[in-house]
Amino acid sequence: MSPEHPTVDLAQARRYLEHLAEVLGAEHVSFEDDVERYIDPYALGDTRRFLPAGAVRPADTEQVQAVVRAANEFGIPIWPIGQGRNLGYGGSAPRLSGTVVLDLTRMDQVLHVDDETAVAIVEPGVRFFDLYDALVERGSRLMPSVPDLGWGSVVGNALERGYGYTAHGDHAQFVCGMEVVLPTGELIRTGMGALPGAETWPLYRGGFGPGFEGLFMQSNLGIVTKMGIWLQPRPEEIAAVRMSIASEADLPLLVDAIRELKLDGTIDGVVNAANAIGVAAGMSPRERWYDGDGVVPDALQDEIAADLGLGRWNVKCSLYGTSAMLDLKLARVREAIEAIPGGTVTANRYPGTAQRDDVIPMDHFAAGIPGMLLADGVRWRANGPTGAHIGLCPLSPLTGRHVAEVTAIMREHIEAAGFDYIGGWLATARHAVNVLMIFFDAADAEESKRVHDAFAELEPILAAKGYGEYRAHLDFMDLVTAQSTFNDSSLLEFTRTLKQAVDPNGILAPGKQGVWPR
Amino acid sequence: MSPEHPTVDLAQARRYLEHLAEVLGAEHVSFEDDVERYIDPYALGDTRRFLPAGAVRPADTEQVQAVVRAANEFGIPIWPIGQGRNLGYGGSAPRLSGTVVLDLTRMDQVLHVDDETAVAIVEPGVRFFDLYDALVERGSRLMPSVPDLGWGSVVGNALERGYGYTAHGDHAQFVCGMEVVLPTGELIRTGMGALPGAETWPLYRGGFGPGFEGLFMQSNLGIVTKMGIWLQPRPEEIAAVRMSIASEADLPLLVDAIRELKLDGTIDGVVNAANAIGVAAGMSPRERWYDGDGVVPDALQDEIAADLGLGRWNVKCSLYGTSAMLDLKLARVREAIEAIPGGTVTANRYPGTAQRDDVIPMDHFAAGIPGMLLADGVRWRANGPTGAHIGLCPLSPLTGRHVAEVTAIMREHIEAAGFDYIGGWLATARHAVNVLMIFFDAADAEESKRVHDAFAELEPILAAKGYGEYRAHLDFMDLVTAQSTFNDSSLLEFTRTLKQAVDPNGILAPGKQGVWPR
Repeated sequence: MSPEHPTVDLAQARRYLEHLAEVLGAEHVSFEDDVERYIDPYALGDTRRFLPAGAVRPADTEQVQAVVRAANEFGIPIWPIGQGRNLGYGGSAPRLSGTVVLDLTRMDQVLHVDDETAVAIVEPGVRFFDLYDALVERGSRLMPSVPDLGWGSVVGNALERGYGYTAHGDHAQFVCGMEVVLPTGELIRTGMGALPGAETWPLYRGGFGPGFEGLFMQSNLGIVTKMGIWLQPRPEEIAAVRMSIASEADLPLLVDAIRELKLDGTIDGVVNAANAIGVAAGMSPRERWYDGDGVVPDALQDEIAADLGLGRWNVKCSLYGTSAMLDLKLARVREAIEAIPGGTVTANRYPGTAQRDDVIPMDHFAAGIPGMLLADGVRWRANGPTGAHIGLCPLSPLTGRHVAEVTAIMREHIEAAGFDYIGGWLATARHAVNVLMIFFDAADAEESKRVHDAFAELEPILAAKGYGEYRAHLDFMDLVTAQSTFNDSSLLEFTRTLKQAVDPNGILAPGKQGVWPR
Repeated sequence: MSPEHPTVDLAQARRYLEHLAEVLGAEHVSFEDDVERYIDPYALGDTRRFLPAGAVRPADTEQVQAVVRAANEFGIPIWPIGQGRNLGYGGSAPRLSGTVVLDLTRMDQVLHVDDETAVAIVEPGVRFFDLYDALVERGSRLMPSVPDLGWGSVVGNALERGYGYTAHGDHAQFVCGMEVVLPTGELIRTGMGALPGAETWPLYRGGFGPGFEGLFMQSNLGIVTKMGIWLQPRPEEIAAVRMSIASEADLPLLVDAIRELKLDGTIDGVVNAANAIGVAAGMSPRERWYDGDGVVPDALQDEIAADLGLGRWNVKCSLYGTSAMLDLKLARVREAIEAIPGGTVTANRYPGTAQRDDVIPMDHFAAGIPGMLLADGVRWRANGPTGAHIGLCPLSPLTGRHVAEVTAIMREHIEAAGFDYIGGWLATARHAVNVLMIFFDAADAEESKRVHDAFAELEPILAAKGYGEYRAHLDFMDLVTAQSTFNDSSLLEFTRTLKQAVDPNGILAPGKQGVWPR
């Protein structure tokens, strides 16, 4: 830990928790002997580096304000979580040991659903499962967008700029309107929410004056207690599409074809691509395929692909519209992808009204149905409860040459470190999130250290080529921020100026995304 | 002016301008005797309430920084403009008299166009005309989105949350990446721009840590000197569509139909609707139709509509796609609109490559071609150089009952004040900007005062029903902000806390959007 990082007085943290036990009720406070569930299960090594001093579970916004005000009085830092899943990035654990976790899971209400204008307002403890269920229960015509695992917080995922796979899959872009508890305990509503009675609060992504939603994403400037999210009315039909290409060498052609199909609106959803062993990892442990030394050999990757009916690169994406429109869109997708050597396209089509039991599990992503299908992917390396993963996720332009370059750099380095290259990328119309998933055994200290060192080596190499991370594990937040050096790191200094102004005592999530209080 | 507003020492402002004449060159500085071009031509009454002390015209970002640093040294406020058109909202004039206009028109370079990822980076002096020309000159496949008048700044329009009519017509939503001179003179780049060499700066609308683009919209927290803007690749075909309905009473049906067509992606562009005399105003002066007392009678509005082949409500919007896709979209539009009594739909279709001379002027909006077609609308009331307008633009949910309600309130009040209800609304998928255009004769002091009083009366009535303004003239910024009273106006207080932190001397655009320095 660098010398500028603060430390927490644990005796004072205990007094803070005792105070909150009186305010919230003892059952809603966890002391240091009861923080197991808040420790990062995928930590790279010693979990004490990110060890919470306890946790508090407020029931509502007023209690959040009370927790925050007391944090200022006691001088104790707090770390908000929605559901605290955030696996691969730190789970529920705080950046600074001794921080108290502010667990918002009890605030789990879907407060508002409007079918007409296609929007919901949710609390931070609402999971994707909960939102889906709430829509079904209300007989709503609306469909959520869901990420790989349905147990996460809708708010937390959007605030961390997570992705799903529907037309609203770039979740942060569909946030509209927030209620925020500031680090002083003050409460604001952004945009039109500042005008009492304005129904446009979750409908207009602006305001009179500056816009503040972005400020509270990947942020330690406020705690979001309500959030508007735009939902998609169910279309006449949904298509879950899969594509593949046979050869690694044709990756640039695939990427460029997908960019064009995204830019012209043919493909509606966020695109998800995975290499063959990436898909295999979601289906089976590694020993099914390989138990030799070193990484899975390239030739064997062809065999695994053939065995599973996969290509070397495999894409899933979603299309929406009337049946006639989907015919046109699918024809366009086929034309573009089948022009690539070994390019294949298959599609399953569903009525827009399809619910969980109407859609095969592997297509749930396209219909906004939350699940846990990919939760077992972490067992690739360690087929048991200590299987873990961490993601290295550099952004690139969505062009064949950029994605191929970043992919090659990551593969070369991670294989040299002894790990399989489990690779993929998500694509919006203009950028790709290039995902390197490192699966490891969290119980193996040597392996964990190798992961840590590989990440620490690779991240600056990628950053030097302009490929910056969109998100990072607690362990690497300072490292990523340290690469953002434009004009003597003036953006970080600006952020810290704002931090000082809104959080003079530095109590909210110190160190999050590399932003430490002055 | 309320007592909290600061005043400017004009002798000191003169010293500031003299200093900048040395730094920038005398020809790039205007003193108080040379500010005619910076005075609001549509001011409601005495222009001295918003009178600049002078103006400075820096050539580049470094000179902007020098201007800002000197503003801090001399204690003189500055008011940035891109092109300063902003007509109806104050033109180039500052909120606080004695402020020096920071005129960025010399920074007029289109710095970057990437056809592959469909993005441009522009300086604040780039007009829509310039961007269009730059794309044509480069043989680019990209199309801009343009507002009614092409002479405005691309950056200025987006920062003020202006609208155009293509699929990218909600301009603020297509901004990605900014370079900003802070009120201290420091320079930052937002998002991935903080990472040197990151090509994703204009491609990824996030960053590692909080997102700041919103912070600099309708803002006095920084001066945008470069901005990324997403452009649309030209489709196979463009359709410019017009719809109308015969009866005022069917407005709710029209609005609801359009919302559904927007939500399901049938209509790509931002929708523009105008009542019959609103369209007539763009084509002819009022005396062609009426020179009696009071407002144009309702029955005559039917006659005007019939004479011009219009409905009582008239919509224009744009569709994009392949020819086959447009057939489907148009069929869907026809089905929905022709189900409304008297509902009509017409469409002109063009190849996606169509340039200025290939498209009839009234359809330019759909093809991203900038023009000045509607500039004469201001002559409705005063057919001469003193014809002026001001816009009252409350936001509502995009539902028939909301748009009909806000329309009825505005019509009743403005007709009672003696002005024709020149009404319209812009529609994205979820919200409507309900536009009341008040045309008046700026040379007529009595009439100007009546406009002022009508606006001042009407705005709080609308706000009390939850219909807040998205933008406002200098004269009404404080009034609009005063309605945003949630939790003792905590959002304004938060904004002022940030203002104090980033602009301790309060030199940048004091009073903009009702945000005054502490």
